Amino acid sequence: MHTDLVAALDIGGTKIAGALVDGGGRILLRAQRPTPAHEDGESVMRTVEDVLGRLTVSPLWEHAMAVGIGSAGPVDASAGTVSPVNVPGWRDFPLVERVHRAVGGRPVTLVGDGVAMTAAEHWQGAARGHDNALCLVVSTGVGGGLVLDGRLHPGPTGNAGHIGHISVDLDGDPCPCGSRGCVERIASGPNIARRALEQGWRPGPDGDATAAAVAAAARAGDPVAVASFRRAAQALAAGIAATATLVEIDIAVVGGGVAGAGDVLFTPLRRALREYATLSFAQRLQVAPALTGTDAGLVGAAAATALGGRPGEAAAYVV
Amino acid sequence: MHTDLVAALDIGGTKIAGALVDGGGRILLRAQRPTPAHEDGESVMRTVEDVLGRLTVSPLWEHAMAVGIGSAGPVDASAGTVSPVNVPGWRDFPLVERVHRAVGGRPVTLVGDGVAMTAAEHWQGAARGHDNALCLVVSTGVGGGLVLDGRLHPGPTGNAGHIGHISVDLDGDPCPCGSRGCVERIASGPNIARRALEQGWRPGPDGDATAAAVAAAARAGDPVAVASFRRAAQALAAGIAATATLVEIDIAVVGGGVAGAGDVLFTPLRRALREYATLSFAQRLQVAPALTGTDAGLVGAAAATALGGRPGEAAAYVV
Repeated sequence: MHTDLVAALDIGGTKIAGALVDGGGRILLRAQRPTPAHEDGESVMRTVEDVLGRLTVSPLWEHAMAVGIGSAGPVDASAGTVSPVNVPGWRDFPLVERVHRAVGGRPVTLVGDGVAMTAAEHWQGAARGHDNALCLVVSTGVGGGLVLDGRLHPGPTGNAGHIGHISVDLDGDPCPCGSRGCVERIASGPNIARRALEQGWRPGPDGDATAAAVAAAARAGDPVAVASFRRAAQALAAGIAATATLVEIDIAVVGGGVAGAGDVLFTPLRRALREYATLSFAQRLQVAPALTGTDAGLVGAAAATALGGRPGEAAAYVV
Repeated sequence: MHTDLVAALDIGGTKIAGALVDGGGRILLRAQRPTPAHEDGESVMRTVEDVLGRLTVSPLWEHAMAVGIGSAGPVDASAGTVSPVNVPGWRDFPLVERVHRAVGGRPVTLVGDGVAMTAAEHWQGAARGHDNALCLVVSTGVGGGLVLDGRLHPGPTGNAGHIGHISVDLDGDPCPCGSRGCVERIASGPNIARRALEQGWRPGPDGDATAAAVAAAARAGDPVAVASFRRAAQALAAGIAATATLVEIDIAVVGGGVAGAGDVLFTPLRRALREYATLSFAQRLQVAPALTGTDAGLVGAAAATALGGRPGEAAAYVV
């Protein structure tokens, strides 16, 4: 018997993944297709329908009670639309209505991918047991999500926790979002690599000039590489401290490719947090690496499924 | 008949005020004493008891079901203690327990003064009808509070929304809190005046060198005064935009003495917000001056009264 399964969709600029997830967060069936990111909106939707089709033909499908979608942002959960930056064919695309139709009227919940990852970390990862948490994804961009009062807090449009685009340097470099000195502009992988290159770091014989290569150089003691990670850590710390000061989180969970740098990131991050998180109620803040892996988007989308259909009342999962 | 009255205490560094407040937010009885801010903790507590005594002798007292306290911070609602910066005799002072004893065991709720002001604005002021709001007090310091999902969000310790001490300038001037580039370090009244003086502004014949005098000079066209308010507005905008990006507020309500500057503050604030609040879901943000006046602390303390005794479940008031 598989009662209370949930269908999950994880929609990104590279792949569209789907799964049937049980009440324990286990993936019983999965399907995946590359995202035709540069084709028109209907072509992208056909790929979603194809992924869903691989789930609906399963005998397990009849137990799927609801669908949870975690999507690259921006999303608008109140309108049921998505406008992923890296999928130009989708602008205010009515994804919730289209999926709703494709799954025979089952309830559909939409959240941003940072919120989905947060739901997964709260359910099964490092934020488990924490009633107030910020989870970050530090990768090509910097995203995140919040748990407040023990529940996922997607916000009215499903974007809450979007720490990558808060300004921690109000006179700083222009950010592609239109603002200045955003956390992402300083701490994302490409910006860590850019800053190291600007300061004179050079890649090794393999030509790898990514943040992962900068992390390897930092571990080997390269001072420019160390300094670039230290600056990223400082921006992340200012953003995390701001979040702790605003909503009293007690843990910040950091995932994404850049978190793979390990101590090269986490040691200066913890040091900088002591400088920026100064108020008594913010000093208790812990920092931990994320525990959920590549399935976090699917597991989190399932976890974010709204029992009542309203994102603010989400978190169908039992912690 | 006066069923369901609430007793309110507003505790600041200058005065300790008390009131009986009805279900419509009307003050039926009030008492006030200067805070003996530089005396020992027990002397301060005797002043609180004196204020409470003036309420308990009233025939209305029997209808007071609960007590709400809004206090200068930091507070710790989870421990029931207060450590107001300007009342050195109180450090981790067990105010909730002491008030609980003084009022014959009625339930007592404690929140920070920024949270209390927010409750008042949500109940009766500019945040009324808004499910997600930030309310700021810009004065000698910069404080605030949050409404999320239609309810007051004090956070576990009653300090959430403390926007004055988020860093918007990670390399900026040291703040007395220990961090750098905090909103308060740039936007508080004393810092507006300090910056204007440093840049060459001089007070008039009355010698008034407060932010109010700088505001008057700005209204008269003094470019240094205008620039000092513009810089304060920029820091407030970065902090408000960060809050909107993190928790999806749709209104920021600005009160406190500095908000009395009017257009001198609000015009550059609205302009700067368009620069920093760039993500689609943050662009809808409105800014409005606070509407509740000097009674906001008392009305808000009454509003924050927890029906169940837990701050996160607060908001006894009916919007």
